[in-house]
Amino acid sequence: MFPASRPRAKRSARKVRPHRQVRGLRTREAILARAVDIASVHGLEGLTIGYLSEQIGMSKSGLFAHFGSKEELQMATIEAARQVFIDKVTRPAIAKPKGMPRLWALVNQWLVLVEKNVFQGGCFFTAASFEFDGRRGILRDRIAAIMREWIGVLTRAVEEAQKAGHLDPNVDPTRLAFEIHAVAMGAHWAHQLLEDRKAYSRARGIALEKLRSVATPSTPRLP
Amino acid sequence: MFPASRPRAKRSARKVRPHRQVRGLRTREAILARAVDIASVHGLEGLTIGYLSEQIGMSKSGLFAHFGSKEELQMATIEAARQVFIDKVTRPAIAKPKGMPRLWALVNQWLVLVEKNVFQGGCFFTAASFEFDGRRGILRDRIAAIMREWIGVLTRAVEEAQKAGHLDPNVDPTRLAFEIHAVAMGAHWAHQLLEDRKAYSRARGIALEKLRSVATPSTPRLP
Repeated sequence: MFPASRPRAKRSARKVRPHRQVRGLRTREAILARAVDIASVHGLEGLTIGYLSEQIGMSKSGLFAHFGSKEELQMATIEAARQVFIDKVTRPAIAKPKGMPRLWALVNQWLVLVEKNVFQGGCFFTAASFEFDGRRGILRDRIAAIMREWIGVLTRAVEEAQKAGHLDPNVDPTRLAFEIHAVAMGAHWAHQLLEDRKAYSRARGIALEKLRSVATPSTPRLP
Repeated sequence: MFPASRPRAKRSARKVRPHRQVRGLRTREAILARAVDIASVHGLEGLTIGYLSEQIGMSKSGLFAHFGSKEELQMATIEAARQVFIDKVTRPAIAKPKGMPRLWALVNQWLVLVEKNVFQGGCFFTAASFEFDGRRGILRDRIAAIMREWIGVLTRAVEEAQKAGHLDPNVDPTRLAFEIHAVAMGAHWAHQLLEDRKAYSRARGIALEKLRSVATPSTPRLP
């Protein structure tokens, strides 16, 4: 999920005064922050120009000036959610030293993100994954690409931990990344649907037990 | 997910000739089989009377005769999917001896269900879980109740395996059920969204490794 390349808002061909452009970008960001929340609750298909317009008190035509179509709004919302994920999960985690500390931080920050209700309706990307996984089209392709990026980040973190001598070199990085990802996703499910208040502590316990079982004696101490 | 109590179709107060009633039930079942597929692809919110009517070539008024409202159709679709789950997962699994064989069969049959594309768009209940987990209402409550039932079945299977002497009595049944469930859900995600052809063999490998790690010497041989 890095480098954090984010598609920029299209610039109008007309010259825009700088402060106005900045306000436009801020407004766009504010709209998308609300859109991410709505989509996390009602799904990306539940995010319509009409509903969003009601929710933020902006005319439909005002919204159409920012996003030409529902699909464009959905795509921009996916990118905004990805940016939240980068800011709250991957960036703080890669500030940690390579190896087991970074691997654990990636998992833990993702759990914290959803536990703290950063997205109103639970994990945005898990919900979007299951909403679009049976369909075809650019939204599904983009969601799948972002999820491959995320699994790639986890897999590389496992490989780095092996190179740093923190983790058993015989472990299959793809398999360990899959397992840790699944346990975190299971926590989102149990927390959000079943209102299981122990879901996150249970997932942390399972993930730590798994990491300890493949750690070498030179692994820095895990929590 | 047992006893397999399934809400019956409401009977009309008017006396119906037996063969006609049977045909009505069959039609209802055929409609719901298609509705389950549509909902597994487009979500329960994407399942509208209008769309279903197009898909099965029955008039909207014909459909309204079976289901008075979209919500009633959605609820009936949830019950139909639950019945598929019982028929394909829980019933074959509980035919196995109590203990590790039954526990493994529950996990494996669930993986087989989705792997064989019994639901057109992947695991119906995982998708429904994430579609409704941020909302309130009777659909969410029913989905959550069915998922609690399922986790209950898995948890009881762990407890039975402990009683049968197949599984370490120090293991927390709730935690093991959570972990196995999460790994299977992770496989549905990777298979369906990422088109990862190794997702199911990987999930089976992880689940078996986990079960072997908590098995006692008297456990019947796992696959």
